[in-house]
Order: sequence, then structure tokens, then C-alpha cells
Amino acid sequence: MTTTSAVDATAPTDAGDDSLEARFEAVRSFSESIVEGLPAEDLVPQSMEDASPLKWHLAHTSWFFETFLLRESLPDYRPLRDEYAYLFNSYYNAVGPQYSRPQRGMITRPTVADVLEYRAHVNQHMARLFDSAMTAELEPVVELGLNHEQQHQELMLTDVKHLFAQNPLLPEFRPGSGAPSGAPAGPLGWAGFEEGVYWVGTDDAPFFFDNEGPRHQVFLRAFELASRPVTNGEYLAFIDDGGYERSNLWLSAAWSQVNAEGWRAPLYWDRRDGEWFQFTLGGEQPLDLDAPVTHVSHYEADAYARWAEVRLPTEFEWEVAATDQPRAGRFADDFRWQPSADDASEGPLRQIYGGVWEWTSSAYLPYPGFYASDDAIGEYNGKFMSNQMVLRGGSVATPSAGHIRPTYRNFFPPDARWQFSGIRLARDA
Amino acid sequence: MTTTSAVDATAPTDAGDDSLEARFEAVRSFSESIVEGLPAEDLVPQSMEDASPLKWHLAHTSWFFETFLLRESLPDYRPLRDEYAYLFNSYYNAVGPQYSRPQRGMITRPTVADVLEYRAHVNQHMARLFDSAMTAELEPVVELGLNHEQQHQELMLTDVKHLFAQNPLLPEFRPGSGAPSGAPAGPLGWAGFEEGVYWVGTDDAPFFFDNEGPRHQVFLRAFELASRPVTNGEYLAFIDDGGYERSNLWLSAAWSQVNAEGWRAPLYWDRRDGEWFQFTLGGEQPLDLDAPVTHVSHYEADAYARWAEVRLPTEFEWEVAATDQPRAGRFADDFRWQPSADDASEGPLRQIYGGVWEWTSSAYLPYPGFYASDDAIGEYNGKFMSNQMVLRGGSVATPSAGHIRPTYRNFFPPDARWQFSGIRLARDA
Amino acid sequence: MTTTSAVDATAPTDAGDDSLEARFEAVRSFSESIVEGLPAEDLVPQSMEDASPLKWHLAHTSWFFETFLLRESLPDYRPLRDEYAYLFNSYYNAVGPQYSRPQRGMITRPTVADVLEYRAHVNQHMARLFDSAMTAELEPVVELGLNHEQQHQELMLTDVKHLFAQNPLLPEFRPGSGAPSGAPAGPLGWAGFEEGVYWVGTDDAPFFFDNEGPRHQVFLRAFELASRPVTNGEYLAFIDDGGYERSNLWLSAAWSQVNAEGWRAPLYWDRRDGEWFQFTLGGEQPLDLDAPVTHVSHYEADAYARWAEVRLPTEFEWEVAATDQPRAGRFADDFRWQPSADDASEGPLRQIYGGVWEWTSSAYLPYPGFYASDDAIGEYNGKFMSNQMVLRGGSVATPSAGHIRPTYRNFFPPDARWQFSGIRLARDA
Amino acid sequence: MTTTSAVDATAPTDAGDDSLEARFEAVRSFSESIVEGLPAEDLVPQSMEDASPLKWHLAHTSWFFETFLLRESLPDYRPLRDEYAYLFNSYYNAVGPQYSRPQRGMITRPTVADVLEYRAHVNQHMARLFDSAMTAELEPVVELGLNHEQQHQELMLTDVKHLFAQNPLLPEFRPGSGAPSGAPAGPLGWAGFEEGVYWVGTDDAPFFFDNEGPRHQVFLRAFELASRPVTNGEYLAFIDDGGYERSNLWLSAAWSQVNAEGWRAPLYWDRRDGEWFQFTLGGEQPLDLDAPVTHVSHYEADAYARWAEVRLPTEFEWEVAATDQPRAGRFADDFRWQPSADDASEGPLRQIYGGVWEWTSSAYLPYPGFYASDDAIGEYNGKFMSNQMVLRGGSVATPSAGHIRPTYRNFFPPDARWQFSGIRLARDA
Repeated sequence: MTTTSAVDATAPTDAGDDSLEARFEAVRSFSESIVEGLPAEDLVPQSMEDASPLKWHLAHTSWFFETFLLRESLPDYRPLRDEYAYLFNSYYNAVGPQYSRPQRGMITRPTVADVLEYRAHVNQHMARLFDSAMTAELEPVVELGLNHEQQHQELMLTDVKHLFAQNPLLPEFRPGSGAPSGAPAGPLGWAGFEEGVYWVGTDDAPFFFDNEGPRHQVFLRAFELASRPVTNGEYLAFIDDGGYERSNLWLSAAWSQVNAEGWRAPLYWDRRDGEWFQFTLGGEQPLDLDAPVTHVSHYEADAYARWAEVRLPTEFEWEVAATDQPRAGRFADDFRWQPSADDASEGPLRQIYGGVWEWTSSAYLPYPGFYASDDAIGEYNGKFMSNQMVLRGGSVATPSAGHIRPTYRNFFPPDARWQFSGIRLARDA
Repeated sequence: MTTTSAVDATAPTDAGDDSLEARFEAVRSFSESIVEGLPAEDLVPQSMEDASPLKWHLAHTSWFFETFLLRESLPDYRPLRDEYAYLFNSYYNAVGPQYSRPQRGMITRPTVADVLEYRAHVNQHMARLFDSAMTAELEPVVELGLNHEQQHQELMLTDVKHLFAQNPLLPEFRPGSGAPSGAPAGPLGWAGFEEGVYWVGTDDAPFFFDNEGPRHQVFLRAFELASRPVTNGEYLAFIDDGGYERSNLWLSAAWSQVNAEGWRAPLYWDRRDGEWFQFTLGGEQPLDLDAPVTHVSHYEADAYARWAEVRLPTEFEWEVAATDQPRAGRFADDFRWQPSADDASEGPLRQIYGGVWEWTSSAYLPYPGFYASDDAIGEYNGKFMSNQMVLRGGSVATPSAGHIRPTYRNFFPPDARWQFSGIRLARDA
Repeated sequence: MTTTSAVDATAPTDAGDDSLEARFEAVRSFSESIVEGLPAEDLVPQSMEDASPLKWHLAHTSWFFETFLLRESLPDYRPLRDEYAYLFNSYYNAVGPQYSRPQRGMITRPTVADVLEYRAHVNQHMARLFDSAMTAELEPVVELGLNHEQQHQELMLTDVKHLFAQNPLLPEFRPGSGAPSGAPAGPLGWAGFEEGVYWVGTDDAPFFFDNEGPRHQVFLRAFELASRPVTNGEYLAFIDDGGYERSNLWLSAAWSQVNAEGWRAPLYWDRRDGEWFQFTLGGEQPLDLDAPVTHVSHYEADAYARWAEVRLPTEFEWEVAATDQPRAGRFADDFRWQPSADDASEGPLRQIYGGVWEWTSSAYLPYPGFYASDDAIGEYNGKFMSNQMVLRGGSVATPSAGHIRPTYRNFFPPDARWQFSGIRLARDA
Repeated sequence: MTTTSAVDATAPTDAGDDSLEARFEAVRSFSESIVEGLPAEDLVPQSMEDASPLKWHLAHTSWFFETFLLRESLPDYRPLRDEYAYLFNSYYNAVGPQYSRPQRGMITRPTVADVLEYRAHVNQHMARLFDSAMTAELEPVVELGLNHEQQHQELMLTDVKHLFAQNPLLPEFRPGSGAPSGAPAGPLGWAGFEEGVYWVGTDDAPFFFDNEGPRHQVFLRAFELASRPVTNGEYLAFIDDGGYERSNLWLSAAWSQVNAEGWRAPLYWDRRDGEWFQFTLGGEQPLDLDAPVTHVSHYEADAYARWAEVRLPTEFEWEVAATDQPRAGRFADDFRWQPSADDASEGPLRQIYGGVWEWTSSAYLPYPGFYASDDAIGEYNGKFMSNQMVLRGGSVATPSAGHIRPTYRNFFPPDARWQFSGIRLARDA
């Protein structure tokens, strides 16, 4: 992992003080704001192996600071409870063994109050660290911890959405956060890009994950990128045209999945009496036809593109196109956790940041010259470079405009649907 | 289901007032006493498909009164929430469809407070029913509902024990409820019974489940029954003699299970540094060698008996022997939820009631002349008469001495271990 | 295992010479007659874990004689190939480890010719044993080996039927062996039996398996037994009346199975263009409405009986009724391997032997006083006394009238359908 | 699918006549030569879902010619049996439904003789087609059919090897075909290549699969490629250094697989009494330390490279390096079906063709501008572009030097081990 502590790194709030400590406080408190006012019950269950309980996310993000900073660098630090080292390690083999991932929903104790106490304990000792022991070597680790916590903030929203969707009462996680906007999507246009050798990736952003580098050159043919994401209305046309019943539109593994799981629409869609509804973090809502389609897998994005007789962009086409675009769009800080057409983005590539993550046609693989570091932090990204596809651009659940970058690589298996993942089309020039 | 409302049915408390309404209040409040003072988190998760969350038990037992009494027989009854009819139906197909059983741990709303409100709502309207609309036809249904709730009280204890055992912190559910007694088990003797034709089952107990009748005759050869259950110490001798490694001691299906699951001791036993511990509802405790062995499957009980060169009793041998014994022993009301040798039972068949359920060699099958009734309540017992074995006598988690009878038939699959199930040996005379 | 070599045991042929050696030759050659003329391909695959390849049956039955007689009792015996001891051991842990059961279809070598050579080798040395080393102690083991081989002859037919049914070409295993007879079933009557204490089981039949004893007394209430099995036509009425869609007719485990497997008719039935067909060892045939229904599970037999408002008999009711009936009916030697109404049975309980195995309501459990012997042969029956139901009477695939007895207990799990299992009803008097 | 019928395409034999018809005859007869002299039993079973029976391969390759040529283009063609259209369709949804893939080992009829008759029938009518109805449009389809059959010839060898390995007798498929050579591997060197933009893929090879094009440019950094594959001896050093026990060497999905499957060595390796053996198509053999390691997954190749502190090449690095190398090395026609150091390859990149397929670090994805055709033949390659990794160069089981090309892309999931897959290392310059 290579990071640099950076003066200009944007904070999750627009507060004037963007010191590292101020941003630490802002990021940490945003995690708690997500669960504020919730009954303890909501923070306990795990709805599938890929998702984790809210309580676990709150604890694990604290574990990260405790493990990689307090235990190693703060003299006299005493953990609140030794067992947390095991209980809240996610997957860092170099740190030690881990509690079984699919069992995370079984842990009723520590309670929510205990976990909040754990957070306060870590925060208090981090304050000591900031005051007395911060060094240039430690600052990048703090930065990483903050970006790590921001990633978990996104997962908190997508995991709890998946959990709430299991409940036939379809409860509202945050009333008002999912209402349709009624704003029109506007026509779909295309932006063109020239053939050439381009530089992609980064070695020197204020902060970046190790998987975003090394910066390197790629050869791209001329291509065009769609001016906005595919909408629910457009996706509905695909459904109505028999999209889920036509094997020739699907990759072989995708077709098996469609049939094994009985997929007939994106995740969280439901049709009753001829009308479509969509489950959101603000409860069930009528389907907003102009909003970007979301909760589709890579398989569905790929099938849709084939049906539309175009294709998905590679991650490098996306990056070349997006580099100079403004980082507008809707993010988690807006507390409107459902994509819609009414965000602040403008220009030839609307909503390229925020709104929905955009599936690319690129497998998640190391860049030329990438080697994961040998320590625990080297496990952060590199070991997942197998059987996953890259997504770009951030979503309504991504915690702040400051967290996203043109070079940011998100990745999920091609059948994953519980993220706010959508579709931006590309085509050969 | 055939029941009779009965004047002399024993109440779950020793209060003087044993009216049906008084017993209703006592049974209902005992359910709440089990969860009193617990954090909400403890009531949410489901640790396996066979177990249910505490919150679900609290709601389902209320659903029973609502469905079979209030909705049908109380004029103007308005349910607190219509969706509960679906959400808290366990398995009554005649009533309607049911929420998926293995998903019961996903329901965070209604919260614990909501469920307690639901209980209060049902109780309040039951009071109305007692005051205004109780009839001789309804009283047996109330009786059934109370016995049903008592069965769920036992499951609350066994299910939460299984849940807590998943937590590597091994939390205490009720401090003090699992401490070893130090009392000696005493020597094992044998009580003899003559060959003959005996009457078994009941048609006229103050209350009984439909599966306990019709009363009928069976032919029994002369037999002997052990004077007390097998102890942990005796079971340890079986383990130390290679009991879990010798295929010839096991039924074929049992041997597959032993190897597939890696069984090497009863559930909840753990050996560290040469010493044995046992997880209890009062946290982990040193193994009490004189206490009755518990959390063994039928497969293990059968293998132990074969190793001991004797056998398990049939359910009829057990019943003939137990009929005249006093219903002493330890029950749930004692709040000491781990079997031990120091209970109040005496006589030639110590601890035959309470302590541990005793596996018999009898498959759970209908008695001659048994036919389940055609209505929903007919689903209570009859449809489970497949692939299960009968247990007799009650346990430390059985809610009260009044709930148990000589003719009471409990049943679980032969590989089940999370109940307080133990072993009483028999042999041919 | 207790057996007695018996003068009057009936041979699988009607030859005059019923010496043990003559019967050995007859039984052994009948196994080979089943596969005579088949292409080698038919003898190789295994269609499910419960079934075995024909080739394996031919080898394993020889392994039995080699293991329990030749290796132990014939001086200078040299096995044809040492590895067969491992490869063809079915489940005798006392003999040694076994090749993985679900992998039996992977063994292409030894070839069919090799296995026939193995059979010849064993036969030739068995002849030496008969000539030179036969003793009163060995004769019962030979008897057991013959009855064992007869049981495998039945499995050869049922296993290969299951295999052939996987082939969409629905090939004929033995042309002509499954043709419908057109004979009428006749009306269903009832034979009555008195309440009383009866003796059941045997200790002294010419030959019997250990699970048929000890002979002991049971108390039976008065009952009636149907005069013939349920027919396909009667079962069709159950189907047409929504039998497979009505949860209240089924045991809970049965209802899960019905829905998980999509059962809507007996195994091997197929409906096309409004007409029912049935796959037989003679290829697909129109459904014979008068023939006994077969390839139904215990679950289906039980549901049918509940629908018909009667019940299944216990195994003891069946035995008491059947004891004095003639052992007519159709058996495997007839080479007509599909039940029909036109067999030779007569009297008040037609087809009580042969035709179809009749499911009873009795779980397969040890008789009072039963203990399996400690040696390998003790594994023959006892260790399977778990989660199985008893069937009585033999079927069209049972190898000969001499193999069946009133006390003979067959057993299969309640969901098994690939045996020739059918239904005879009972009711309370 | 784009193909061109080509004058200079090399035939699987060195016969002078390289007409399309001559090559048709040569390829078809090579399939039969693989099974020549085998007992029918060997051709029936299927050892896992990914593998198919030999008999199925023989039939399916004939089905291909029947379906895409004879049925469509030969007037008056009559299929031998209509059901084969369904039975031997592998995965072409556009052609129609398919017999269940995991059930291919259940088909005993048609027999081997029937399938050989089917092959003769197809061959005979293909001869008619060559004589009377061949056109420039059909020739590429014939070419595709031949290359398709050659691919299945490789699968015949790898599938039957997997099948035979299930048999504890470890039979020899072809005696002598797996003997170790004793030839030395020689030291490992490195060949260097410059940074630059390179052309890769093909649009105009005499024959090529659709996935090899369009030809396009890629930017490569300077790199070096190993002069020969990794040997068994070198891989043993990785094992002995704890390679399979060190989580930090493995991708996360790989580490799960290693532990779930208990991998401790390549597939088919066995260690007894301190010595290593390897199962081959010529039976079990001592491990040849100088031979290229084979039957390793992508996961193992990747972990080995990380252990060796280098990496795997991308498919484009491999292609750039291999383009000018001679297509020497050992292929299936040699009937020596185990890699060894003694083949005919020479130069700076020994054994780059033949011997073992070489895992690359590239995911199997479409080239820029690739679109699968809309017809059934479009299903050939494109729909598998998900969750697979590219292998290059051919193996000892690849049917002939003429079948392989620098641009040839083989692909398997990263956990596949039953192909002759090995490792060639790369590193940054």
C-alpha cells in the first residue's frame, strides 16, 4: 500500500478544517450518523455471507485503527477487550485467525452499546496519538484507515438494504431517503474519444489504493461513451422484449445464474397488479422510470448491452473519459440513497461520478508492475484479483465526493447485485 | 386434538389461584421472565434452521392465542397488525402460508418492544375473552395454548443456548444458572418389572396432547430400568474407551454422522489442556462428573448403551416404570438450567422426571386408533410422526412440574443434540 | 446372524436336487442370467448413490463368499486379485475399509469379463469347499451368502431400472418383461382379525435373517386387511382428487419432499397428451389401471391411506394375516418384472406375496431381545435400524418364492421409490 | 465465427494429401485411434460434471458435422436416429434443448458399437457432401468441425485420465504412454522483449477461432520470459518450502480452495513412503523431476510465481514472444501423453508449443471489436468469456502441431487442474 498524507484531500464534510485529525473525526462520526436513532435489533443480523451486520462494520472499522495504529505505535495502549482482535478481524491472515465470516450475525454480545464504547475508546486513544505520537510514517496509515471506513460506510448501506429486503414488512431504514424525483433523464447521447496510447492509473494522487497503480500506458482504439447511465425505463424495455428469456443475450455462466435464481428483473424490483415497485432504504416506492437502473449484476449489464447492440466500456476507456469530468453527482452525504435523474451533474457525461457504480468489461487484475506489499496491509486489495469485474465512479452510497477519484477501482463478482451497480454503455467509434 | 379443561391441572406457579385465567397469566408472564433484563440484541438471531429467535417465540406464542381464540371467538377483535398472521405462523398450513422458517433471524422489525406490545395486546383481549366470552368449547383451546407456550419456553432456553454457544466470548445468558453442584450421583441400580400386558397412553388426563392417546394395551417382556441417568463421568469412560472411534458401536446412519460432523463428545463439551469444560446458560463451567450427561443425540445414547452391553428402554417400558413415580426433579422454574445430581428426586428411579429428557428406543409413531383432527390444530403433532425418536420425562428446561406427565411424548430426530437430552439405560430381565 | 442349513429350503429353480451345493449353483447362475446378452455398457454406470452398477453386484456377491468362506475356511485359497477385497466390500467395517460408495460407477476395470472370471474363480473354489471342507458351521454362512445374493438380484433389477430411466431413449432392458396384462383387479374386500396377543417373528425357520427374531409376543387390536393391493386406477383417483396438492394428507417431512422434488405421480409415471405411461424393464408401456400401484414411497402410501380414510397395517398385523397364506404371486423367476393383476395368487388376501412390497406403518427397529452379533456378519442388518420403514411380502423382482417368508422384513427409508413398493390398506375393526 | 478454408493448413498426419477431405478423414480416424482396443466399459462413465465420457465425445463430434453440415446442406440427408440431435448437443441453445450435462455417464445405449456406426454414417454422408455439395461457404464450417473435433480429442485424453484416476487399481489407459524420460531440463534462462505497441491476435490465419480476433494493438512494457517451463523438481521446492501452507502466497479465492480441497500437491501426485509418484495415462510412474510440472491450477501457478518472486506472463506478452518460435514440442500424435524434457523443441523459449499449456495472468475476455455471430456457431467461444483464465501453447494432449497457433487462446476456470496445464514464468525487465 502506498499512500501520501495530503493537504488537499477532501473531507467528508465541507468544514473549513481539513487537517487529518479533523477528517478523522468527521469520517468516524459519519459512521455513527448512519445508525443514529435505530433500534439495536437492526444492527445484529447478517442476511448473507457477503454482507455483514451494521454492528460488525462499526466494530471492524475501529479494529483497523486499533490494530494498525494503536497497538503498534501508541505507547501504553491497552485494548478495551483482547478478544476483539479475533472477533473483528475481517480477512487479515497476517494479523491472525478470524472469526468465521458467515457467523457474524450470531454475535449478540458485545451489544451495540458495547461497540459504541469500543469506538469511543479507539477515538480517544487516536486523539492521544494525534497529540503525541503522529509521524509522517503513520499519517498514510491513518489515511488508509479513513478510506477503509468510508468503504465500510457504503457497505453498511448496501448490507442493511439487503437485510431489510428479507423482511416481508418492507420496513423503512431511513424514511424519505428513497423517494422518486420525477426528474426527466433526458436523451442518450455519445461522447467520442480518439485512438491512442493513454496513461492510466496513478502513483501520486493525494490518496489512492495500491490497486490504482502503477500508472502505466495502454493502447485504446477510438470509442464512444454514453452521455448518461441506462435508465429504469430503458431497462424495462429490455425486460419487456424478453431479455431474461433469450439465451443468446447472455454469457454461459450468466444464463445458468438467471435460470438457477429465477432472475426476471433487477434485485429489489417487484411487480404487483401490472405495476413495478422498487425497494429502497426509504421503503418500497413506485419505480422511477427516469432514474438510473441499479442493483443489476455484471451479467445483466453485459446482456443489456448485447441486446442494445453496443457494449460495456473497458475500465481504461471509462477512466480516460472520466478524468476531466467534475465530481458532481449524488453521494451518501446527501442522505438520498436511491439514484435519480435530479442530481447536480452536468456536461457530456452526466452522473459519471455518484449515482450508480458503472460495470466495466474489465476483469479486476493487477496493473503492470503491481506487487502487493508483504505485510498485512498488502492483503487489502491484491488478494482479491480473481473472478471479479471492475466498477467505476461511485454511487449514492459512496460516502463523499472526496472519496472517489477517476482512478478508483471498485470490484465485485459478476453475479453481485446488492451494490448500487448500474450500466453506462460504450461503442466502437 | 382432544383436551379437557380440568380443575386440578397444576399451574406453573404454586399460587393458590389455579383458575384457567390465573394460569394463563402465570404462563404468559413466565415467558417474559426468561428474557427479562436482556439486551434486545440477544432476542434477534437464529443460529440454525431448527432453532428460532427468542423474539419469534414470544410473538408466535401470542399468535397462537390470537389465531385460535381471539380471531375466531372474540367479537370485534382487531389484530394489532395484520401481517403478523403470516409472519408468526410456524407451520399451520390450514391457517395459511408462512414466512420462511430459516429466515426468522432476518426480522429486525417488529422490534422487541413491538413484540412485547403485541403480547400485551393479546393478553388484554384474552382478559376480555375470559370476562365475556369464555365457553366450555374454548377452554381446551386455552389449555392447549398454555401447554404450547410452555413447550416454547423450553425451546427458548435450548435455542438461545445454541445461539450463545456460537459466540467465541461464550457469554452468560443467566449468570449462576449453570454452576456445577458437587453433589454425588450415587451408584447405579436396577428396578425390575414383570412380563405382561399393560395399559399405556391416556384418554382422560386433565390435559394431554392428542399424540398421547388412545390409551391402549401393549405386551412387554420382563425388563429392568436403571435407577438414575448416565452421568458425565460414565460417558467420559465411553469416550476414553474409544467410543467415538469404534464403528461397531454405532448404527450406520449414526456412524456417517459421527464422521461427517467430527463428533467426539456431547454438544457443548470442550477439552483444553487435558481438562473438560461444558458450556451452560450460565457460561462455561468445569464438567461436573456426577451430573447426568446431556446434549447427546439418540445416536450417541444408543451407542453408549451398546458399549455398556445393555440397551435403551422402549417408550412403553419407560411409561410403565414411571407412572407411579413422584414428579420431582429439576424443572425450568428453578432457574438452574443445567442438570446435576442434587435435585429433590428420590426413590428407585431417581430423576425420572426433570433433569434430562431420556431417549427411548421407540420411533415416534401414532398409537393404535390415533387419527389427527382435520382442522389446523390437527397439525400440532400428527404430521411429525416420521424419522423421529421418542423422549420421555422432561428436563431442567421444561417449564414446570405441572407440564409433564407419565404419558407425555417428546420427539426429536435421532441426530438432534441441542435439547437437554440424556440417557437412562434398560436391560432384559 | 443365526441361520440353519435346511433340508426343505426351496431353490430358485424347481430342480429336484435341493442340496446346498445345487442351490448354490442355481442361485449363482440366476445372477448371470439377469445380465445375459446385455452389452457391457449396461453394467457400468451408477445412477444414484443408493443404487449400484450391475457389474458391482456381480462382483460383490462373489466377494461375500470369498471373504466369509474361502479366505477363512479353504486351505490354500488364493484370491484372484487382492485389491478386490477393498473394491467390492460394501459396508463391512469389521472386514476393512471400503471403496467410496458413490464412486462405484467410476470403475471401468475390472471389466465385465474380468468380473465374470472372478465369479468363475469363486465358484470353482466354492466347489472345492463343498467337496472337501464343508462343515455344519459353514453351511449357515453359505445359506446366508445365497440369500444375500438373492437380495442383490432384486437390487440388480431395481437399480438397472433406475439407470435406464435416466436415458431419454427409454431403452428396453428385457423386451417383453413389462407388458400390461389386461387382467381385471376385482373388487376390494376386507379380511378381519381378532384382538389378542400373537406370536410374531421366528427363531427356527429353515433360514431367516437375524432381524426376524427373536420370536416374541405382541398385543394387537382387532383389525381388517385389504383383500388386494391398491391399483394404479385407484391411485389415479387420488391424484385426480388433488392428492399431491393437499398438505393435510401428508406427513410434514413428506410434504417437504413432495414440494422439493416436485412429485406429482409415482416414480416412472409420465403423462403425455392426456395419457399416462409407465416405464418398465420392458420399456415404456401404457399404464395398466388394474395392476397394483408400485414405485411409491412410504410417504405416498401413507398419504394415500389418509385420503382413503383408512391406514397402513403395522408389520405385525401384516405378519399375523399373511402367515397362513400361500406363497403364490409373481416373483423374479417369471421374468415378468412389472406387477399386474394376472398372477396365480388366490384367496382372501390376493397377491400378499410377490407383486409389490407392501409398506407398513412400522419403523424398522430391533425386536425385543435382539442383539447383533459382534463379527462382520453382525453388520448385515442391525446397523440399519434407523430412519427406515418395514415392507413385507416380496415383489416381482424378488428372486424366488423360496426366498420370501411371512416373517421376512424388508426396509427402506420413507422417501425411497425405486423399489417395487406398493400399498395394502388396513383399518380398525 | 470467421474461418477461411486454407490450402496450407497442416494435417494431423504427415500425409502428402492435405485436401480438406483428406484432413477430414485423418482427423476423424485419429479420434477412433484413441479408443482403439479399449473395452467398452472405459467409454461409458463420466467422472465429474466438467468431463464427458469417451463415448459422448465420439458421438458429439459427429453430431457437429451432422447438425451444421449434413442436416442443413446435404439434400436427402436422413439422420441415423432423430434422438441424437438432443442427446449429443453439448450447449448450443440455438439448436435446441440439451440432455443434462452431469448425466452424460448414464447413457448406456447407444452402445459403443452404435456410436461407431453413427460415426460411420456421418462419415459416409460427409463423403457424399464432399463429392456433390461442397461450397466455399461450407468449407469453413468443415474446418471448424475438424478443429472442434481436435479440441475434443484433447478432452478425451484429459477426461479419461481423470476417470482412470478415480479407480484405486490405477489402470493403464495406454501402456507406455506415460514413462519418464530421464532427460535433463537444463538451467532456466530469460529472454528479453522491448517496451512498445505490438499487434496481437489474427484476422487472417489459414484457420482461427473467432476469439483470436480482431487483430489489434496493445502497449507492453519491457519484459522477460523464462526459457522453459517450471519443472516438477522446482515445484517440489515450493511444496517443501511450505508453499501450500502460506496464505500470503495465494489469492483469496485460491486460499479458500486450497483449504476446502486439501490441496498439497498438483493433481495426480501421490506421496508414499517418502517418494513421489504421478498418475499418467500409462499408469502410475515415479515423479520425473526434470519434466515440466503439469495438472496445476491457475491458482497454483500464480502462487508459485509469487513464491519465486516473479509473475506469470500476460497472454499478449506470451504471444509476442512465441510468434516466431518453431512449433516443435510434444503433441498428442506422439502417443506419449506425459510432458517431459526430451522433446524436439529448441531455442531461447524451449517447449513453448506442446508439452504443457501455460497459464497466463490474463482473464479470458473479448478482444476490442469482437462480437460473437448471432447463429449457433456464435455460441462456440464468446459465451464463455467469464471467470476463466487464458492458457497458451498447447500440450502433449493437443492433437497435432497443425492445430496450434501463436494466437490460439485456450481458457479454463482458475481452479481447473485436470488439463495438462503448467507454468512459464515472466518478469519485468
